[in-house]
Amino acid sequence: MHFLPSPLRIAIVGSGAVGCYYGARLAQGGHDVHFLLRNDLDFVRKNGLKIRSYLGDFSLPLVQAYATTAAIGPCDLVIVALKTTANSALAELIPPLLGPHTLLLTLQNGLGNEEALASLASAEQVLGGICFTCINRTAPGVIEHTAQGQIVLGEFVGSDQPRTQALAAAMQASGIEASVTPNLLWTRWKKLVWNIPFNGLAIVGGGISTDRIMASPALLETVAALMHEVIAAASAHGLVMEPNLCQTMIDSTYEIGAYRPSSMIDFREGRPVEWNAIWAEPLRRAQALSVACPRLEQLTQLLQFLISERDRNRT
Amino acid sequence: MHFLPSPLRIAIVGSGAVGCYYGARLAQGGHDVHFLLRNDLDFVRKNGLKIRSYLGDFSLPLVQAYATTAAIGPCDLVIVALKTTANSALAELIPPLLGPHTLLLTLQNGLGNEEALASLASAEQVLGGICFTCINRTAPGVIEHTAQGQIVLGEFVGSDQPRTQALAAAMQASGIEASVTPNLLWTRWKKLVWNIPFNGLAIVGGGISTDRIMASPALLETVAALMHEVIAAASAHGLVMEPNLCQTMIDSTYEIGAYRPSSMIDFREGRPVEWNAIWAEPLRRAQALSVACPRLEQLTQLLQFLISERDRNRT
Repeated sequence: MHFLPSPLRIAIVGSGAVGCYYGARLAQGGHDVHFLLRNDLDFVRKNGLKIRSYLGDFSLPLVQAYATTAAIGPCDLVIVALKTTANSALAELIPPLLGPHTLLLTLQNGLGNEEALASLASAEQVLGGICFTCINRTAPGVIEHTAQGQIVLGEFVGSDQPRTQALAAAMQASGIEASVTPNLLWTRWKKLVWNIPFNGLAIVGGGISTDRIMASPALLETVAALMHEVIAAASAHGLVMEPNLCQTMIDSTYEIGAYRPSSMIDFREGRPVEWNAIWAEPLRRAQALSVACPRLEQLTQLLQFLISERDRNRT
Repeated sequence: MHFLPSPLRIAIVGSGAVGCYYGARLAQGGHDVHFLLRNDLDFVRKNGLKIRSYLGDFSLPLVQAYATTAAIGPCDLVIVALKTTANSALAELIPPLLGPHTLLLTLQNGLGNEEALASLASAEQVLGGICFTCINRTAPGVIEHTAQGQIVLGEFVGSDQPRTQALAAAMQASGIEASVTPNLLWTRWKKLVWNIPFNGLAIVGGGISTDRIMASPALLETVAALMHEVIAAASAHGLVMEPNLCQTMIDSTYEIGAYRPSSMIDFREGRPVEWNAIWAEPLRRAQALSVACPRLEQLTQLLQFLISERDRNRT
């Protein structure tokens, strides 16, 4: 493996649960990690980060924490873990971190995030990572990691390269279960096959966990029909899913019990919901190829309404 | 006009707001009206009925009120104003009211109600009426009538007959704005073009009034798309709607302001929702003719879930 310096100089942009968790793992693995923080900046500077992980707890007593990316400066690797609803801030946050060989890795949800980074650097500098994990910030500087933790990495342009593999290897050496996908977009769409119905219906269903969806024959029909629309949209993009994906995903959702999708938590707690990245952008891409997605369209409209109505009632 | 005795011996089955209002009008018009009552039986026997109508208040101090239809006996006209969710009781309630020439008039919502009555008598005895009105029971024996009040009458089998016109005339003579449709099913489907989206989205949108739907460009797209599905389903049944119906209905909904659809009130107040008659039965009929109604299907599934989840959380 080559192309990547070691240790890596890394910036974490968006130090919520995901950014802090993976950043802390990489720091523990010996990399030079710099966290952009907002709310918890003073607390973390003073007290560091505590990771309570089902894989074993650890803490970082000394954290390089910053209020601006200008204070961090150019890095080898920029990990973007902002909520996608804050993507408009990237134009200001990213440039100070860029050198000629800086890699930009987005760990964000849904579609359109690699494009947002590519517009600020070059497409060849951009990678995406899809996280399969249960991570929450439970208190200032405290991250709870309760299940899974894998990242699937891929190139925005083309298939995997030696550097993709090298980055995965560096992550693995830091205790992160990382793998490489030869087709990032395929993997993103595959995750959407699950996220679109389950995150969406958890909100429309009244702020429910997945077990309530699984217990309803009516909603399971909705889930399956939505999945088939998303699979058809992916297929129109040349991204063909395995034949039994819908049933496999539904079956495996029984096993995760009363899981609370992140979008539902965001919705209930009054935070921005990643409506554009998870529903509206996939819908736009389906419509651009004339794939009929009436259920996805209706779900997207319902979510748009429910989110705006929530915000209206809070003000 | 002929075929109808005068005064009519009338039974009102289902003495909620609609049954009490129209029954009281007919009693005031000189007909011999018998009310089947449940909760308010003793109160109404003692205190009668008070109608507070925007057309002028009136009261019926002496009301013929009964606990069973056997106590009423055969009538010329049976007006069924039960919630459709109680239709399973019809098999017990209707037979004692039947003579060889009894007319059965259902004022209930949605599809399938004429069929339910026809199975208990003969199809030729059955008529349907579609009510366009705002009526609420606000206290025991007190009915508030705040707007409209029209009934459109039609035959279950075939087109209008002299008796249909005679019944409308009898209603008009009692102060009810009644008209006759030559095609009852056409009129029922037309009402569903409005009820399916607005009653449904008022529930799925979180228990909202129509003004919130009208203020949301996203939900108005959902409304229009649902309307087009219902119009297509009606069309497949040979029931062709006027070309601009969707836009006309949307425009006229601005005028009714913060209207609370009855299904939404039922949903919020923990009462049975007429899910089968308004959503499931139209969907079944569309599917029987292979009309694709994915949005109606998804809405029907969401409503089924939300109603069952509400009931689950109340017990």
